[in-house]
Amino acid sequence: MFQIQAADKQARAGILKTTHGEILTPIFMPVGTRASVKSLSPQDLKDAQTQIILGNTYHLYLRPGDELIRDLGGLHSFMSWNGPILTDSGGFQVFSLAKLRKITPDGVEFSSHIDGSKHFFSPEKAIFIQQNLGSDIMMVLDECVPYGADYDYTRASLAITTAWAKRCREVHTNHKQLLFGIVQGGFFEDLREESAKQITQIPFDGYAIGGLSVGESKEEMLKFMNFTAPLLPYNKPRYLMGVGKPVDILEGIRAGIDMFDCVLPTRNARNGTLYTSEGKINIKREKYKKDLSPLDPECNCYTCKNFSRAYLRHLYVTKELLAYRLNTLHNVTYFLNLVKKAREAILASKFDEFYFKIKNLYPED
Amino acid sequence: MFQIQAADKQARAGILKTTHGEILTPIFMPVGTRASVKSLSPQDLKDAQTQIILGNTYHLYLRPGDELIRDLGGLHSFMSWNGPILTDSGGFQVFSLAKLRKITPDGVEFSSHIDGSKHFFSPEKAIFIQQNLGSDIMMVLDECVPYGADYDYTRASLAITTAWAKRCREVHTNHKQLLFGIVQGGFFEDLREESAKQITQIPFDGYAIGGLSVGESKEEMLKFMNFTAPLLPYNKPRYLMGVGKPVDILEGIRAGIDMFDCVLPTRNARNGTLYTSEGKINIKREKYKKDLSPLDPECNCYTCKNFSRAYLRHLYVTKELLAYRLNTLHNVTYFLNLVKKAREAILASKFDEFYFKIKNLYPED
Repeated sequence: MFQIQAADKQARAGILKTTHGEILTPIFMPVGTRASVKSLSPQDLKDAQTQIILGNTYHLYLRPGDELIRDLGGLHSFMSWNGPILTDSGGFQVFSLAKLRKITPDGVEFSSHIDGSKHFFSPEKAIFIQQNLGSDIMMVLDECVPYGADYDYTRASLAITTAWAKRCREVHTNHKQLLFGIVQGGFFEDLREESAKQITQIPFDGYAIGGLSVGESKEEMLKFMNFTAPLLPYNKPRYLMGVGKPVDILEGIRAGIDMFDCVLPTRNARNGTLYTSEGKINIKREKYKKDLSPLDPECNCYTCKNFSRAYLRHLYVTKELLAYRLNTLHNVTYFLNLVKKAREAILASKFDEFYFKIKNLYPED
Repeated sequence: MFQIQAADKQARAGILKTTHGEILTPIFMPVGTRASVKSLSPQDLKDAQTQIILGNTYHLYLRPGDELIRDLGGLHSFMSWNGPILTDSGGFQVFSLAKLRKITPDGVEFSSHIDGSKHFFSPEKAIFIQQNLGSDIMMVLDECVPYGADYDYTRASLAITTAWAKRCREVHTNHKQLLFGIVQGGFFEDLREESAKQITQIPFDGYAIGGLSVGESKEEMLKFMNFTAPLLPYNKPRYLMGVGKPVDILEGIRAGIDMFDCVLPTRNARNGTLYTSEGKINIKREKYKKDLSPLDPECNCYTCKNFSRAYLRHLYVTKELLAYRLNTLHNVTYFLNLVKKAREAILASKFDEFYFKIKNLYPED
């Protein structure tokens, strides 16, 4: 299911097999919240060499509904994407987006952020929903502990997350969908260690680090990522949830992590912040008004091959719909090229060289 | 420059040669207001078999500015569209969108709808701006008389429009850009006749009917279109500005008109109203929630080949950016197929048959 092809210190290059195809790791997963990576078509995603996308269980459960998607043939068919899909468990959105949450050992009750309607996710239900969606990789239901939670709360929450993980594992019996466990434990080393010990004792197909990038400093994030990564089994895929900036991703790869997702490239694209081989640029700046050069001369995406910075600035400033797509296509291409080059660097035993090169591009990140 | 290849009663099939390529007529021109057909890339336009697009001089003059576009190599290069482009004169938007208009025989003073800044379009300036844009077909500056204007106002306006047309003709000397005149005259037959007589005496490369589709009833629109079309030279391209619905376009073709533009397919796409071989549908309707059929089984566009009505409804209801593009791509494809089939019907001397078939599809239009 997962093969490590090469390693350069902690960094690994591997192949993860799923029902809808193989994924070369390390990999970045563009976020397709509601059965669409915002503004991009499946063809755009293929053009960007996307290998796997992420779907949000919470959003899809609410709209259009997981049972509807099941009845229509599953998420792949519904959105016309025939590559691999990972779905989260819905937990993160329940804890960050939904209202009136009530957590019990049974599960979590919440109100929809759309219409206030009441819903309940048990660990079993999170799996059933993801089975309806038919994703290639499912995630267990967990509590993503809010930043600032104290030791006692975090320890109690960790126990619930472990109990839920067991119930998810027990209820999932098909072999078409992989199931990943999630380590929590907040910002306490002993609790991270405890969570990792408990979760890795359950036989999952991969293991994720949850609860990072929730408001802590960059130093704390890196500290707990580096602390937790080696606690995960070496021969299983490791996934750092919701991270991050280009440098953060390379820090993760350097710590031995294989999979990443983040809304950053897509959301920033819609805000006019674009990633290039020369660093980040804000396309709305006056200095690009007459700039005939491509957004990134080293990029081969449709945006960079066909349009000038001056045109992209014009589209952005006038809020033309095309701006969102061209910018998103480029940023997604950039992130996918980043992990592709990281993989090549690992295979060539030159990862650190690549890591420092990118780190120099983003002195403020 | 313009060759009529076949005629079926008044309807004609022709070829119009421009600097950026030949256009097979009758043709529909998607509207690319601000150097972008909203939500579509140039590749999308090619996929829809777009032959010529329309750019709005008023909008481009304000943002990003015609001199900037000239300095950057012209509108084609700026927006990466290498097919023909027609630009209007800016007059229509000045009279419908700008504020504090003051018309004198010299030209029209107006305030920008964006920032209130003051501007002045003389007939010469309208041409200079379009020369900066570098369009293939330019339009003369005219006054689009508002619906309800009385006889005396309309007669006085007509005289100004004719004087402006002459000045546009005199100041335009390059041979790379064609220049079309515009017949006005409101809703008075003798004034339409007078305007047509005056305008057609000026040697333009084509002639347009302006001042229709400005608030009048469908009957009036058709009456004045049918009255004015035969007053235009037979062997020059005829353009009905700002029209219209599929049936209106066929009425125009039936009256001997060759060129059409309208925001209808693009604007309606963004409102969820989609044109199909079975008539108009509103994709947000509950009845499409589980509809696995393509939007239009007879259409070969990317949208119809890859997605179900259920998915398109989901994207539309959740306001996903992809909805606007997929819907627009389809509607533009529909309008271009419509005029393509009209052309084939003319070449086969079966235009009326086609006309009645489409008319039956839209009983309420």
